[in-house]
Amino acid sequence: MMPFSFRVTHTDGAARRGLMTTAHGEVETPAFMPVGTQGAVKGITHRDLESVGAQILLCNTYHLYLRPGDELIARRGGLHRFIGWSKPILTDSGGYQVFSLAARRTIAEEGAHFQSHLDGSRHLLTPERATDIQANLGSDIAMVLDECLAHPSDAATARASMERTLRWARRGRDRFLRLRERVSDTSDTSDTSDTPDTVVTNAGQAQFGIVQGSVFPDLRDESAQRTVEIGFEAYAIGGLSVGEPIDLMYEMVARTTPCLPSSAPRYLMGTGTPEDLVESVARGIDLFDCVLPTRNARNGQLFTSQGRLNIKNARYAEDDRPPDPECTCYTCRTCSRAYLRHLFAAGEMNAATLNTLHNLHFYLDTLRRIRESLLFGRFESFRLLFHESLSRQPRDP
Amino acid sequence: MMPFSFRVTHTDGAARRGLMTTAHGEVETPAFMPVGTQGAVKGITHRDLESVGAQILLCNTYHLYLRPGDELIARRGGLHRFIGWSKPILTDSGGYQVFSLAARRTIAEEGAHFQSHLDGSRHLLTPERATDIQANLGSDIAMVLDECLAHPSDAATARASMERTLRWARRGRDRFLRLRERVSDTSDTSDTSDTPDTVVTNAGQAQFGIVQGSVFPDLRDESAQRTVEIGFEAYAIGGLSVGEPIDLMYEMVARTTPCLPSSAPRYLMGTGTPEDLVESVARGIDLFDCVLPTRNARNGQLFTSQGRLNIKNARYAEDDRPPDPECTCYTCRTCSRAYLRHLFAAGEMNAATLNTLHNLHFYLDTLRRIRESLLFGRFESFRLLFHESLSRQPRDP
Repeated sequence: MMPFSFRVTHTDGAARRGLMTTAHGEVETPAFMPVGTQGAVKGITHRDLESVGAQILLCNTYHLYLRPGDELIARRGGLHRFIGWSKPILTDSGGYQVFSLAARRTIAEEGAHFQSHLDGSRHLLTPERATDIQANLGSDIAMVLDECLAHPSDAATARASMERTLRWARRGRDRFLRLRERVSDTSDTSDTSDTPDTVVTNAGQAQFGIVQGSVFPDLRDESAQRTVEIGFEAYAIGGLSVGEPIDLMYEMVARTTPCLPSSAPRYLMGTGTPEDLVESVARGIDLFDCVLPTRNARNGQLFTSQGRLNIKNARYAEDDRPPDPECTCYTCRTCSRAYLRHLFAAGEMNAATLNTLHNLHFYLDTLRRIRESLLFGRFESFRLLFHESLSRQPRDP
Repeated sequence: MMPFSFRVTHTDGAARRGLMTTAHGEVETPAFMPVGTQGAVKGITHRDLESVGAQILLCNTYHLYLRPGDELIARRGGLHRFIGWSKPILTDSGGYQVFSLAARRTIAEEGAHFQSHLDGSRHLLTPERATDIQANLGSDIAMVLDECLAHPSDAATARASMERTLRWARRGRDRFLRLRERVSDTSDTSDTSDTPDTVVTNAGQAQFGIVQGSVFPDLRDESAQRTVEIGFEAYAIGGLSVGEPIDLMYEMVARTTPCLPSSAPRYLMGTGTPEDLVESVARGIDLFDCVLPTRNARNGQLFTSQGRLNIKNARYAEDDRPPDPECTCYTCRTCSRAYLRHLFAAGEMNAATLNTLHNLHFYLDTLRRIRESLLFGRFESFRLLFHESLSRQPRDP
């Protein structure tokens, strides 16, 4: 079992290229993690996901906890075996979905009470439970439970939430270390009565802390410093991409990354557009996830080297060109805009599949090109050309 | 451009193995044609379709005529180029969908008046229009328009319908031959005023006639004889699998195939279960199509070597076995029943994709095994073993 590690191999300004090693193999960074909410990226098979270059998959703890259940998955040997994906997996804490999806949620110091959006059943997600559930799932990277604050929030609310997130981080980390000890010491006879059903299905799991602090620079600084003091394998920036102006997000990212250890990967959660990825790499980010490429694909929006393309637009009805003439993905090699528009208009699920394949290829290829530019110390020229190309054509309405 | 041809290479009783050559390549028979209603098999990409061994695709004229329109497809260079599928394509006449899907249809001698199920627009499908539309689509095999009779029908109704089908066959064939002459003689200055917008996008297209006659043996004999007199590249048996008892269907098939020329492929339309395929091959059938493997896949029913398996069944929630332990398809190689059940229960479209991949693999592999048994003169032993295996386990409820 390889322990979690990270090594920066090239830098260019604040941008870095690196290699993250997990229990299920290596990930070249900067990396984008496609979102496989329920243990599958919507609309495409794992082999298609590998064919577009995915090196790591994100799965949602909230969904898998509710259905089919983390204990059922643990009995199957963990998430990798259950879903048949042998590369690295990152799971979120479940907190974000509790805040955005669940019914009648109330936040208390112990954790978040909520009702399932599926059947109304009552649940309590605590920092300890979030850790236990992810131990059952056996992801390679687990996220600590944080409080997700709405934007905008005033400074006092943001501070209180940040303080709670820090207390939860301490509790989540303690539980994680305790489970880890239980695994490493097989003669451990300590009391496990508070985690009777938890199975550590992946002994090499790492746990990332999360920096909060809304859009208040001082709070971000303090949150980063105190989260690092608790000590995690690596750190994420949460609470951004929640409606704040884009420049403010970039400012918060630029402000936070220097407060995080350069020896660990930095993960910007839930972001963003292709432009956001490039700009965040420029500010020292190594890991991304976002539903944008997959969700927009299902709605008929394609990301291309020349901007976004809404395939349902009538202007494409007789357009024999591929969605992106510069793209080498399966969709662009075999499908015209006219055919993709027809499939979308006809309500064929293949439209979702083909659009998703393209959008993920575009995202993953963008990250590949970012990494290549870092290898040759040409990230800044790549960044300029990338933005120029995107603005070359007027966007679809 | 290869002309259409067919050659029987092996026989075993009434069963035959052969090679059908079309303008877009060869098809080994007996063959099963997956249904790609709107120019795509629901839920899987063309490359997945090829990976499970599909040699020929069926597309529905009714759907493509209404959306995106056969003339738009002709402007794209025909159906093969429009959908990016370079192997053979068969199109039906559109008649069956007019009878089963369209609103307010009335059948007259000239053809079928109907309203689109999409927008209520009024249309008239005549034998000539069905031929023209398929010329625009440029399929490798076009079907002549026939009247689809409901089961049961009395002998007088069945005779009247059969007679109309024969008159329509004559008209459809005349139009087909006229379009073909126009293509072969580029100096043709004959009047084309009745087909001004028709483009023959596939000069090598063949046209199949259709035998009707409900469940009346004498009518089937007469329909076969008189359809052969009109003269088509090959012949199909229509009007079966419409609710009649299975033994009656087998009887009609067994009765009809000897009335059809042994030098042309015989196509049993819209059938059927895996057992039906084996039994129909035993009675001299060479070509099949059916929505059963794809439609049932989307509803969670898997065809396996040991019978049908309803993946939504709770008993599979913790079943780590592949759907069919004897199957080599991608789904069976990478997914457990537990995972497939989870995806289905979670409403993930990947469930449809993975189930469809398996079911088509099972159908196409069954045909492959039939062909192999014919090669070695062992079809009868294959047939016995196949039925034995299917009855080995009790079926799911």
